[in-house]
Amino acid sequence: MRILLVGASGTVGTAVAGALAPHHELIRAGRHSGDVRVDLTDIASVERMYQEAGALDAVVTTAGHVHFGMLEETTPEQFMSGLQDKLMGQVNVVMAGIKHLRDGGSFTLTSGITAAEPIRLGTNATTVNAAIEGFVRAAATELPRGLRINAVSATLLTESLDSFGPYFPGFEAVPGERVGQVYRRSVEGVGTGRVYTIWQ
Amino acid sequence: MRILLVGASGTVGTAVAGALAPHHELIRAGRHSGDVRVDLTDIASVERMYQEAGALDAVVTTAGHVHFGMLEETTPEQFMSGLQDKLMGQVNVVMAGIKHLRDGGSFTLTSGITAAEPIRLGTNATTVNAAIEGFVRAAATELPRGLRINAVSATLLTESLDSFGPYFPGFEAVPGERVGQVYRRSVEGVGTGRVYTIWQ
Repeated sequence: MRILLVGASGTVGTAVAGALAPHHELIRAGRHSGDVRVDLTDIASVERMYQEAGALDAVVTTAGHVHFGMLEETTPEQFMSGLQDKLMGQVNVVMAGIKHLRDGGSFTLTSGITAAEPIRLGTNATTVNAAIEGFVRAAATELPRGLRINAVSATLLTESLDSFGPYFPGFEAVPGERVGQVYRRSVEGVGTGRVYTIWQ
Repeated sequence: MRILLVGASGTVGTAVAGALAPHHELIRAGRHSGDVRVDLTDIASVERMYQEAGALDAVVTTAGHVHFGMLEETTPEQFMSGLQDKLMGQVNVVMAGIKHLRDGGSFTLTSGITAAEPIRLGTNATTVNAAIEGFVRAAATELPRGLRINAVSATLLTESLDSFGPYFPGFEAVPGERVGQVYRRSVEGVGTGRVYTIWQ
């Protein structure tokens, strides 16, 4: 398959690339690196990404930031930033991408364990990830031409323990290699409207 | 209790007022009517609402719009409008309201059945309602002074059959009177981080 991987340089993106590259042709997209540069919060930039990428069988997004902080100290702008970046960024990829995917193609989005398991300072993360999972459930019901859409919700990756471990006390990390395989299951499988979880 | 009801003039708000008014002191807020006028998408307006409302034991929000339409024809601006109105409007009420609620007070937000049951043209609704439920799950873990937060997710109200019935084929409607009681259960009960569902 020809697969567009958005957020290819991140920790999850690297794991996904490792799982997919041996079997498929990957086009890597990112804000600052990759075959194609893209700002997911700008729909015109997303459209240009698809023009440059050409015909595709699958799109995988692993990009997006959320805001971490105490709710009482969070400003509306900070809360919105997570909605605009991780949620709307991925929504833009889907809305603009429908017409660029070949029949039977798929979108695989990234949510996260905080959708199900809130963590300290993580209200924005839970909100954004729950929204992504709702989006996937609903979008699956109306995609044309046999297109599929799923989300992958992973716990902390072993490779991210140094940077994010303190946010996830008592959570067992999983190796990126295992996480990458779950994305491969979404891309090459038959499921749609699913949230594939990966945690211990 | 002194209870602020935001969105008091809507169909759900009218049902909630009917359930709460016999037992409590209600301060009604709305965009175009009520004791206090408020634009929930403007945090300064939300702050003014709380200044005018005075000390409160509970806040109930039943306000907010989402976008209905085919995903492929939806613009990012239309999709964002639902996030800004129904989601961020209620998030603003909570973020600004924490310091105005008396110890042990509560927030009751409104999501909707589409969080669990996608409907045609309703991807934005499912996304927004799922986000609200995620927000409630996470915010409950960090509210101070015994404050509680829940969401109510109702199906179509009997009173809304004329306007929204065509969007919900085969869904049984419930009378507003029953829906109002579920809000009362959230306000006067002990639950927090809960989504109280009401459908057949």
